[in-house]
Amino acid sequence: MLTFVGLGLYDESSITVEGRDALRAADRVFAEFYTSRLAGTTVDDLAAHHGVDIEVRDRAGVERDPEPILRAAAEGDAAFLTAGDTMISTTHVDLRLRAAEREIETRVLHGTTAETAAASLTGLQNYRFGKATTLPFPYAHGAEGVPGSVRETLTANRERGLHTLVYLDIKQERGEYMTADRGADLLATHWDGAALGVAVCRAGSPDPLVAADRLDALADRALGDPLHLLVVPGDLHALEADALVELGGAPEEVLPDPV
Amino acid sequence: MLTFVGLGLYDESSITVEGRDALRAADRVFAEFYTSRLAGTTVDDLAAHHGVDIEVRDRAGVERDPEPILRAAAEGDAAFLTAGDTMISTTHVDLRLRAAEREIETRVLHGTTAETAAASLTGLQNYRFGKATTLPFPYAHGAEGVPGSVRETLTANRERGLHTLVYLDIKQERGEYMTADRGADLLATHWDGAALGVAVCRAGSPDPLVAADRLDALADRALGDPLHLLVVPGDLHALEADALVELGGAPEEVLPDPV
Repeated sequence: MLTFVGLGLYDESSITVEGRDALRAADRVFAEFYTSRLAGTTVDDLAAHHGVDIEVRDRAGVERDPEPILRAAAEGDAAFLTAGDTMISTTHVDLRLRAAEREIETRVLHGTTAETAAASLTGLQNYRFGKATTLPFPYAHGAEGVPGSVRETLTANRERGLHTLVYLDIKQERGEYMTADRGADLLATHWDGAALGVAVCRAGSPDPLVAADRLDALADRALGDPLHLLVVPGDLHALEADALVELGGAPEEVLPDPV
Repeated sequence: MLTFVGLGLYDESSITVEGRDALRAADRVFAEFYTSRLAGTTVDDLAAHHGVDIEVRDRAGVERDPEPILRAAAEGDAAFLTAGDTMISTTHVDLRLRAAEREIETRVLHGTTAETAAASLTGLQNYRFGKATTLPFPYAHGAEGVPGSVRETLTANRERGLHTLVYLDIKQERGEYMTADRGADLLATHWDGAALGVAVCRAGSPDPLVAADRLDALADRALGDPLHLLVVPGDLHALEADALVELGGAPEEVLPDPV
């Protein structure tokens, strides 16, 4: 049996009860933290908290050498942990399909996600989000500024009145996490500085911060520790506008008229 | 303090460890199950499992008479429980804003969601979903068939190559839950029967089912107990197509060519 377990957003207690029970009952526990990580704990603390050994694999270890994981799952109960939800990366899906092909039973235990948190912390309604996008570090996409695909997603959603969730680049191996002020600065410079932006910082932690302002103003804010993400709202219902003022400190004059 | 707690998808163990600790520590525990419910447990079992009293409020009790909840939060620690994540309904956001206006501290403890589960169970990539929509029972929207707004969302997403998550109507007070075969039948009749659909049934339970086929074929399937939802995929990457075959039993000939 291969059980994929999402660890949730922040620390040891972000996991579901069901996920915790499964990881503690597993014969072997694998994990990857290259797609995301838990900002509120370390792998050692996580392992000690649950009383298990955690074998961390890098991207190559999952993609090119999945054999040890599959063998452990064929011989006993293996758990595969990821920050947030599981199956976010194509690598996870690939691993699940390889297991299924060998008739190894698989199970998916869901975790909480930044996607969900972005809606519930900001008061923006989840069904009014369009396609999400990821903003890469400029050095990572081989050009200055913001990739055309990111600008196109933002513009296409805005034309339909929809909010855009902008994931911010994580370069785990370099210890680099794009902050929301940096992301806002990139979007202000290369897309639309007058557009409203909402920084969501430390979602799932005891001290999350929501800050709403024009993108070119958010660019100058100090927003504290990672992880951050950005939301670029589309049209706002009256209650959504109220929420951005009350929960995100949005200056009234930067909000569009409610629809 | 008013703590909003998402119970997650299915039963007592779908909650996060952090959420469980907060609900057990609260002086009073309120809940609403009109936006969704936990299919794997009852309110009585949930209360007994956690050793707390749970005061269930209907929609009117939250929307028109929030005073008792706010008073409990002003005087001590109150928890407000919902199935899935919290803040999904505008009522929750409204309650949070009322608390904030009175300077009652609020906290949001996230839960797992059908939105997340739809991606992780099907192998469809979460960043390739467009705007979600909700398919109502025909009697509930005052016309036969499928509302124009639902068809427009499906078509607009498809034109952009994006997947659509279709929430299926829940009429909690009547005990009615639209099944995915019924939803597929409505979409097949009033939108496009040849389009691919994916039924996701009992997400978060120990026996979730994923079934992928043409909408007009899904309409004839018996898919078992609720809750169900539907996904209408847009363009498919090769791995997504493989996942729908392996995990959802999609007949190869109904899949579009991978992009």
